[in-house]
Amino acid sequence: MKKPKILIVNDDGIFSEGIKALWEAMNELGDTFIAAPSREKSAASHSITLNHPIRVKLIERANGFQGWAISGTPVDCTKLAIRSLMSDKPDLLVSGINHGANLGTNIVYSGTVSAAMEGSILGIPSIAFSLASRKTHYFLAAKEIAKKVATRVMNTGLPNGTLLNVNIPNCDVENIQGIKITKQGNQFFKDQFDERINPRNQKYYWIKGEMVDEHTSTYSDSLAIKENYASITPIHYKLTNDSIMDDLKDLFVND
Amino acid sequence: MKKPKILIVNDDGIFSEGIKALWEAMNELGDTFIAAPSREKSAASHSITLNHPIRVKLIERANGFQGWAISGTPVDCTKLAIRSLMSDKPDLLVSGINHGANLGTNIVYSGTVSAAMEGSILGIPSIAFSLASRKTHYFLAAKEIAKKVATRVMNTGLPNGTLLNVNIPNCDVENIQGIKITKQGNQFFKDQFDERINPRNQKYYWIKGEMVDEHTSTYSDSLAIKENYASITPIHYKLTNDSIMDDLKDLFVND
Repeated sequence: MKKPKILIVNDDGIFSEGIKALWEAMNELGDTFIAAPSREKSAASHSITLNHPIRVKLIERANGFQGWAISGTPVDCTKLAIRSLMSDKPDLLVSGINHGANLGTNIVYSGTVSAAMEGSILGIPSIAFSLASRKTHYFLAAKEIAKKVATRVMNTGLPNGTLLNVNIPNCDVENIQGIKITKQGNQFFKDQFDERINPRNQKYYWIKGEMVDEHTSTYSDSLAIKENYASITPIHYKLTNDSIMDDLKDLFVND
Repeated sequence: MKKPKILIVNDDGIFSEGIKALWEAMNELGDTFIAAPSREKSAASHSITLNHPIRVKLIERANGFQGWAISGTPVDCTKLAIRSLMSDKPDLLVSGINHGANLGTNIVYSGTVSAAMEGSILGIPSIAFSLASRKTHYFLAAKEIAKKVATRVMNTGLPNGTLLNVNIPNCDVENIQGIKITKQGNQFFKDQFDERINPRNQKYYWIKGEMVDEHTSTYSDSLAIKENYASITPIHYKLTNDSIMDDLKDLFVND
């Protein structure tokens, strides 16, 4: 039987630990192909590079890890790999493993999620993986979850235009309580701006802030992580809020 | 009566024609405050600036146009204006008028839409305006539509977390057929990569491509534009695809 082709992308950059862990896990399932930003591109969201050329370079790390370092954004990596660098379309796209959770409203800023969403736009079953820790990274459990989810998605497929956003608690395999199918919750980064003055007496700002989580009535992605479950949220890029179409017709059309 | 405070942002930059047109229109409705990228930031999507300082500069154009030129992304502009530059929260946020339509799948790349979406995340009624033309720009009709939509949104409000994505045909006011409430359709940019070699014999790529539109069973944003209607699509950042939650539970949990 022909081995499946698995495209690996991320937003932490090709030299991150998370992409190495994901590569190790996916090597057990198929032939891997890596296309990742040449440096960290967190919070790049779904941005693409229109006004600069995109450069590529084949790089190697230890143990046979070989991949394309790309000067653009995470979404550029997905596009360039599928449209140009790969000889055939991949059977699966995986993005990550992100250093830090992608939960709630925060997923709209995430390059990890967007790189997978772009795969879905291009017709590839796609999964984003994130490890719920910003500090120590313990990838063993995440690798096991990634293998399990990837295997099932390759066997079953995903509906057109839907991808999976997977978050994994930062703990030992045996401490993971299981898998929960969740809804995107309300976790968000409540930002503030740190105002400073440079030596030329000009103002500048740094974004800073704190993560906050608002109650949701349904079982959310962040609640799963809090309870040490791996969280799988099916997401799509159909943004229409159908529930207010009629109200808007009354307001703007039937007047 | 106190005049409403209207925050104006965009992604084409503070020196664009579109933001000037929107400022002129909004000046008739309230007190305006402008915070826009110092240069063009198309296709920035929902990216934010974490690894660089954000610089701001007060600039002036003709006829009293005054606003903050910001070194970051469109979403940075929204955040910085609301969190730091403005003395009070605005009553309304308007983004645009974008030079070019934001329709279908393409809205996920749009800085114009994301700058308005960020307003919605921060609790402000928010509207993105785009003119459906990449070449000649004829803003008179767009200004009329912008005033009408902004006035009604200020009177009625919008549900929490929902913003309006408004696209306007590039024609005279009298040729606009009316307003349609639409769903996000399937228009997308089918990209290719133009491979080139630089004088140092290194490969690089430019994204290029063509706009394609797939049929949808419902009345879409791009169909409205094609028929010379202004299109209003209510959108939100709740990305969960509820319809496959049960299938996923069967696949991953109840096994």
